[in-house]
Amino acid sequence: MTKVGVVGYGTIGKRVADAVVAQRDMDVIGVAKTSPNFEAGTAVSKGFDLYAAVEERRELFDEAGIPVAGDLDDLVSAADAIVDATPSGIGAQNREVYEAHGTPAIYQGGEDADVADTSFNARANYDDAVGADHVRVVSCNTTGLSRLLAPLREEYGVDKARVTLVRRGGDPGQTGRGPIDDILPDPVSLPSHHGPDVKTIFPDIDIDTLGLKVPATLMHMHSVNVTLESDVDADEVRDLLAEESRLFLIPEAAGIDGSGKLKEFALDSGRSRGDVWENSIWSESIAVRGNDLYLFQAIHQESDVVPENVDAIRAITDSAEQAESIATTDETLGMGLGRAFER
Amino acid sequence: MTKVGVVGYGTIGKRVADAVVAQRDMDVIGVAKTSPNFEAGTAVSKGFDLYAAVEERRELFDEAGIPVAGDLDDLVSAADAIVDATPSGIGAQNREVYEAHGTPAIYQGGEDADVADTSFNARANYDDAVGADHVRVVSCNTTGLSRLLAPLREEYGVDKARVTLVRRGGDPGQTGRGPIDDILPDPVSLPSHHGPDVKTIFPDIDIDTLGLKVPATLMHMHSVNVTLESDVDADEVRDLLAEESRLFLIPEAAGIDGSGKLKEFALDSGRSRGDVWENSIWSESIAVRGNDLYLFQAIHQESDVVPENVDAIRAITDSAEQAESIATTDETLGMGLGRAFER
Repeated sequence: MTKVGVVGYGTIGKRVADAVVAQRDMDVIGVAKTSPNFEAGTAVSKGFDLYAAVEERRELFDEAGIPVAGDLDDLVSAADAIVDATPSGIGAQNREVYEAHGTPAIYQGGEDADVADTSFNARANYDDAVGADHVRVVSCNTTGLSRLLAPLREEYGVDKARVTLVRRGGDPGQTGRGPIDDILPDPVSLPSHHGPDVKTIFPDIDIDTLGLKVPATLMHMHSVNVTLESDVDADEVRDLLAEESRLFLIPEAAGIDGSGKLKEFALDSGRSRGDVWENSIWSESIAVRGNDLYLFQAIHQESDVVPENVDAIRAITDSAEQAESIATTDETLGMGLGRAFER
Repeated sequence: MTKVGVVGYGTIGKRVADAVVAQRDMDVIGVAKTSPNFEAGTAVSKGFDLYAAVEERRELFDEAGIPVAGDLDDLVSAADAIVDATPSGIGAQNREVYEAHGTPAIYQGGEDADVADTSFNARANYDDAVGADHVRVVSCNTTGLSRLLAPLREEYGVDKARVTLVRRGGDPGQTGRGPIDDILPDPVSLPSHHGPDVKTIFPDIDIDTLGLKVPATLMHMHSVNVTLESDVDADEVRDLLAEESRLFLIPEAAGIDGSGKLKEFALDSGRSRGDVWENSIWSESIAVRGNDLYLFQAIHQESDVVPENVDAIRAITDSAEQAESIATTDETLGMGLGRAFER
């Protein structure tokens, strides 16, 4: 039983903690937070031991009447593996604590790639993380692109990928973010960071990415073009992608026209927090013109990396092989929104 | 002096009427409307003779106390040219009225291409409309793409164009439209109508377009990829595009990050209604990778076709050649937002 410490209990950390609890081969021994906010209250009510991520802020928890089990050192020394889900840049600062205790650690995509021995996507390069000390799960968008590109590369070869990422301006809880009523090139200059980030998973891929920000909170949307090295038709691509457990091909009959209905379907399906772990690809959008493949996929920025973090724990502790880990994670979480449409 | 009748005095019609008034070689002899709404009031206060576009609705104007000069037949028979700026599909219905009077007519991009003898973009194919009886000015997005592709084709050759159009959900006045807080593939299936529409201007071009709708009202945004037939660098492309009077290259120093500041700059510049007739291309966004050119351009859906309509009037009445018409339109309207940044 792998003892997991979760450092940072915000958008990603709280989801990873729940996902770890759902596994048979690992458990959460505690979560570390900086502030006694509503999420700290939830952690306590879920029965997680709460640790003060910053020692000087421990008294804030005392004042709020929230019990604290110890500080960051206590959690790290007791854990077999750490999932660091702190805001961008904090993970790199925490790294020395994890090193001091010899505890292997998993970081999120907001950190620079050089925080870790390898960047990680379960489908694409699980083995690179086996036995590593520091592993970085790539960001939501890079995870979404890696999951899609992996089977396309293996089956057809990728000559070039060109992706426009129409990004949500902020998460539903990020009330200070924009834009309102605008469409912003972001960044204005090519490339957005996503293309280079995909190369941390596929070093030799030719990919150009452009980013935009729009007044939406629910999910990102990718307008994908991949020039393939083989002649294929759209139905073959559809069949190939349908085999991937973390790709959900939205059937036309579902009547799902955007992120709102997707999230509503996830909630109706009983998904915790309405999470959509799968890339959600509009089946009708899959089109081939010459060697150019096109499709639209929605990426739930708050949750698609959650199963990847679970798999990264198994890789970094060398406790399961790739296929076994992915199958276990998928089964325990209930991956596969598409099953509702299978006859 | 060309006598112009404007049929439909909404978003496009009212702008075209003002633009015609600004010309030295044409004048507005009247505008036709269906409803005595606020725009009818504006038309009267600007001194335009108002005609009832639908005879049965004439009494509504009487009840509203808005004077009417006649009906559609009266306007069409008195005009040398009609600009039909009615909602999509109405232009095709009106065509028989224009034909009955032998009055040449200009339609908007919402009509099917076969309403007209030719589709029209002043920069790309002015001569095709010279002396035609029925001409269709292509839609805002197609106008924006045609203006961009024309010089690229002439100078470098276009192997293939791939464009993701991130479209505003509705105009500021279209209060019933959405989405709110969502990003919708629209249409879900490839291609959006824009690619085929661009082929009405450049029949032999290879272009794939994907459309999305987002919660914004101010302008459309195009994420453009053009695979060129020549080796070029970004600075050469920048210099080429800077020569085009209806392309505004937003300089980095302008601090314009999206549609909102663009519109504010247009208002500060004294532009009527804050209109941005020019494609607005982020200069920093122009990038070349191999033979792939990328850029972002914003398209003001309410106004970029206005100068094109003015030029179409000259073409259809054979009253000026292409270069002369474009120069005159540009000078009288005050084209060239970029001049504010020239030293």
